[in-house]
Amino acid sequence: MTEVLDTETAELVAEHADCLQVGARNMQNFSLLRRLGRLGKPVLLKRGMSATIEELLLCAEYLLAEGNYQVILCERGVRTFADHTRNTLDLSAVPYVQRISHLPILVDPSHGTGKRQKVLPLSRAAVAVGADGLLIEVHPHPEQALSDGPQALLPDMFVELMRQVRQLAPVVGREA
Amino acid sequence: MTEVLDTETAELVAEHADCLQVGARNMQNFSLLRRLGRLGKPVLLKRGMSATIEELLLCAEYLLAEGNYQVILCERGVRTFADHTRNTLDLSAVPYVQRISHLPILVDPSHGTGKRQKVLPLSRAAVAVGADGLLIEVHPHPEQALSDGPQALLPDMFVELMRQVRQLAPVVGREA
Amino acid sequence: MTEVLDTETAELVAEHADCLQVGARNMQNFSLLRRLGRLGKPVLLKRGMSATIEELLLCAEYLLAEGNYQVILCERGVRTFADHTRNTLDLSAVPYVQRISHLPILVDPSHGTGKRQKVLPLSRAAVAVGADGLLIEVHPHPEQALSDGPQALLPDMFVELMRQVRQLAPVVGREA
Amino acid sequence: MTEVLDTETAELVAEHADCLQVGARNMQNFSLLRRLGRLGKPVLLKRGMSATIEELLLCAEYLLAEGNYQVILCERGVRTFADHTRNTLDLSAVPYVQRISHLPILVDPSHGTGKRQKVLPLSRAAVAVGADGLLIEVHPHPEQALSDGPQALLPDMFVELMRQVRQLAPVVGREA
Repeated sequence: MTEVLDTETAELVAEHADCLQVGARNMQNFSLLRRLGRLGKPVLLKRGMSATIEELLLCAEYLLAEGNYQVILCERGVRTFADHTRNTLDLSAVPYVQRISHLPILVDPSHGTGKRQKVLPLSRAAVAVGADGLLIEVHPHPEQALSDGPQALLPDMFVELMRQVRQLAPVVGREA
Repeated sequence: MTEVLDTETAELVAEHADCLQVGARNMQNFSLLRRLGRLGKPVLLKRGMSATIEELLLCAEYLLAEGNYQVILCERGVRTFADHTRNTLDLSAVPYVQRISHLPILVDPSHGTGKRQKVLPLSRAAVAVGADGLLIEVHPHPEQALSDGPQALLPDMFVELMRQVRQLAPVVGREA
Repeated sequence: MTEVLDTETAELVAEHADCLQVGARNMQNFSLLRRLGRLGKPVLLKRGMSATIEELLLCAEYLLAEGNYQVILCERGVRTFADHTRNTLDLSAVPYVQRISHLPILVDPSHGTGKRQKVLPLSRAAVAVGADGLLIEVHPHPEQALSDGPQALLPDMFVELMRQVRQLAPVVGREA
Repeated sequence: MTEVLDTETAELVAEHADCLQVGARNMQNFSLLRRLGRLGKPVLLKRGMSATIEELLLCAEYLLAEGNYQVILCERGVRTFADHTRNTLDLSAVPYVQRISHLPILVDPSHGTGKRQKVLPLSRAAVAVGADGLLIEVHPHPEQALSDGPQALLPDMFVELMRQVRQLAPVVGREA
């Protein structure tokens, strides 16, 4: 999966990536959404950092309206006054989306917390709340990452995360 | 457990309740906290609806400073722009509190969501994130409740909640 | 005017102060409000840091219901993600309160901004929006203040503030 | 002034409009900003609905870095829990921007409040706080407007607004 940053590069990215990601800052970039709707590749649409769920679903309609039904939503935290995390992960979005929409919804605890140590517990919570998947950032040398280093898991942390997720998933009726 | 609303009634409540609850609106009621610190009964201190975790812990210090070490914290959701729930449950507060404090922390998904249907999935998430316990509202006839009816579980929903929690708890190293 | 912190000291303060202030943290301290409603002294009720205007007015009802009609409201900023001020001063609260209530409303740009340099421009804005008065903190030696020093004006800044306010007030039909 | 919605139409709009507006949803559309930076026309950059002032200024750098120095900033309200207005107009942004940047900053009380009745008092406040200009929506038949009708002034309300602004401006050292 690769993030598509603008309409100019959308087609080039679509040639090489299996899934096109629309970042939180682009959630309401309607020209980009329409373009991606026509490219026919699966699209991961991230919730804007102060978007309501209704707004997220209305943005998904731009993709659906072009005939692209391979749309995946993603909760990645919203901006609040709380200062102990980078964003406040709104896990209640998951059951709400699942009640009013047919679209699958992933959770991104890496952006949702912004801190490596919180990714594991919040990943467990995301699986337990019923998320259809996780989006996890891993980096072998996060101190050298060009961006988002503090939220990237080290590979062995990811192995442990997967071990725990595999235990939790069956409890909520999921395979892992 | 019974909520203590003011200093005048604190002693009367303490005679009859095993645990004294300080509601979110009273988190920074310092006179009440000092009084409860001296009564020697366990106190459940709920996070204010726009309080940072640092502020929550500083309020707990008012209880501890009076020699009452039986203090339990509670995450019950914060106020944000998001309109699909009554409050936004901030589950990242749980691992954060556990890293910087020795105090146990419960999660209240009833107030945290304000909606009956969301209590079950968010309870699962709270257990999975590592909460030390849950605070769940149950009412046999929620339509007759004097307050908070829409967030009260029916008894059979609570039975199902407990069933699921019992399955999840061992996965995160807890008994249930 | 003196802030009343709890029910225990309310009567003592009422003996000495012309106006009793209820701070933002106590806006929903209903026992305190009822007590102040019975003392018969004017009360300044500050908006809680995440309170809606409806909640502010409902809290004022606790005072009015006890027969105390000398109630003054105060906008002092709300808590948001914005980090360039201590709080975000919500000046639109002023015309909204004035449309749906008969109660006067002051603005507190000292708490509303938390920064000395912003008090003068926001005081001008508060007068221009139609506020019924200002609450300004002044300290001859703010670096020695026990609290809120960074938001206290020096005396000569207050003189300049009053000079500008006197010019603005007539434009919005007020005397100064 | 006309809003530019995407890179595809930017040049066409630039041929016909004197000033190109970047809406709040596009504040972080970096491809669009770079394109507008190269077109050489004045650009009005609106603050995103949950953007900090630092983020607003960093977005302006995308325009400046392309050699376009005709950049005007605009405060149009941020998203908060407060429900009595569409957005919460953050007037403290004005003196803050003026202290740390050389760029002019306008205030948009139409979007900032979303309600016709609040536009006049908040326009007065914006002038009084020191804004370098106002952005006001006017419509002869707002009930027929394709969007934002509830916040559009009727022409005679705009005449009254200008009358009041002309009186206030000299008090804060501005011509009107």
